[in-house]
Amino acid sequence: MTDKMLGVLGGMGPLASAQFMLRLTLLTPAGRDQDHIPAVLWSDPRIPDRSAARRGVGPDPLPWLMRGIDGLRAAGCGAIAIPCNTAHGWFEPMAQAAGLPILHIVDAAATDLRRIGITRGTIGLMGTAATLEMRLYQDRLEAQGWDCITPEPAQMERLVIPAIAAVKANQVAEAYAPLAEVVNSLASRGAAAVVLGCTEIPLGIQAGPAEALRVPVVDTIDALARAAIKWARS
Amino acid sequence: MTDKMLGVLGGMGPLASAQFMLRLTLLTPAGRDQDHIPAVLWSDPRIPDRSAARRGVGPDPLPWLMRGIDGLRAAGCGAIAIPCNTAHGWFEPMAQAAGLPILHIVDAAATDLRRIGITRGTIGLMGTAATLEMRLYQDRLEAQGWDCITPEPAQMERLVIPAIAAVKANQVAEAYAPLAEVVNSLASRGAAAVVLGCTEIPLGIQAGPAEALRVPVVDTIDALARAAIKWARS
Repeated sequence: MTDKMLGVLGGMGPLASAQFMLRLTLLTPAGRDQDHIPAVLWSDPRIPDRSAARRGVGPDPLPWLMRGIDGLRAAGCGAIAIPCNTAHGWFEPMAQAAGLPILHIVDAAATDLRRIGITRGTIGLMGTAATLEMRLYQDRLEAQGWDCITPEPAQMERLVIPAIAAVKANQVAEAYAPLAEVVNSLASRGAAAVVLGCTEIPLGIQAGPAEALRVPVVDTIDALARAAIKWARS
Repeated sequence: MTDKMLGVLGGMGPLASAQFMLRLTLLTPAGRDQDHIPAVLWSDPRIPDRSAARRGVGPDPLPWLMRGIDGLRAAGCGAIAIPCNTAHGWFEPMAQAAGLPILHIVDAAATDLRRIGITRGTIGLMGTAATLEMRLYQDRLEAQGWDCITPEPAQMERLVIPAIAAVKANQVAEAYAPLAEVVNSLASRGAAAVVLGCTEIPLGIQAGPAEALRVPVVDTIDALARAAIKWARS
């Protein structure tokens, strides 16, 4: 039994947050309720769209993100996990003002790549256009020895962006085929694994057959859950 | 977009709470993140075991339940849902002290029975021994025209109680066969439907084939999620 309480800043989207709570539970070794990790999920889907803000066509989400962090700190949480990759574009100002540690989802994904035996070489990276343009993954992963390739702009428009929107609208099954097509396209371009760097993407990928994917994928929801369990148990 | 924030008092068990958040999201008509319901989940698996407390062999959970309610009220929540049936044994003292409405899971189950067209007659009721002994369901449902039958004591010992414990220990698949056996036993005794009156039970039942169940079941996680959506949208 741990007295460390995890704060989860979510709602971006809410299905990804709920899946994070589910995976946090299932990945925790436990024999009864009291062995699980205490957590507070702040699921606020009103947080302004992160991608729109990066494109300069929507309000700044930072005040909303900080409101959630303040609520989680007031609830007694000792660290924060944010199961939304694009929100990590605001990581530095959040971390400076939070007053408690924030687990970084890209570090969690790097740990997960090593866990599955991919320690260097070319990997594929999928995410929102904002996540890819901010180079949230590329700079951190390339500094650690991986080369990142990303979907073609036409694939982003036709496949990745509509699939992410479908998951946010609860149309999870419809997201599988376009996302699987992009995973396999990255594999054919030389990726040894693909990082699903938007928390809606693993939800879509899990809605269809895993055996149709030609390379392993890193589920950033699971990766962040593993990092959170490690924090809670340390 | 709603400004009503739902409080979810959970962790009893944590998998049922996560499933509640998932179903709350999937059952909400939404086209984008901002259409979903803002919610805070207080998932505290340290809350003392409700069944043990009722048997007089464990500490009182009420102070822990109130700590969660106070945290949810401080976070700005306007109503509370508790995805744990046994915890409703403390409903009256919680409701009196909460300072905000608590949705009752048995009322949500009754609404769901009517939704599937079961408006009277005999229904089966599964739950923890504490929930059945406290007559949480029987008194409320019998006042509304249903007759409740419950598993035999030997079935509780051999099938229901171990299956609930298995789900709390993340052994979800193992819970299906014993729970399905009890559903069908209640059906053969005349139940037109079975209320899964412990939030671990639907998790186990969903781990196997629905077509093997001889009568419809009421999933109290889904029923409570529907009641919460109705509150948020009203």
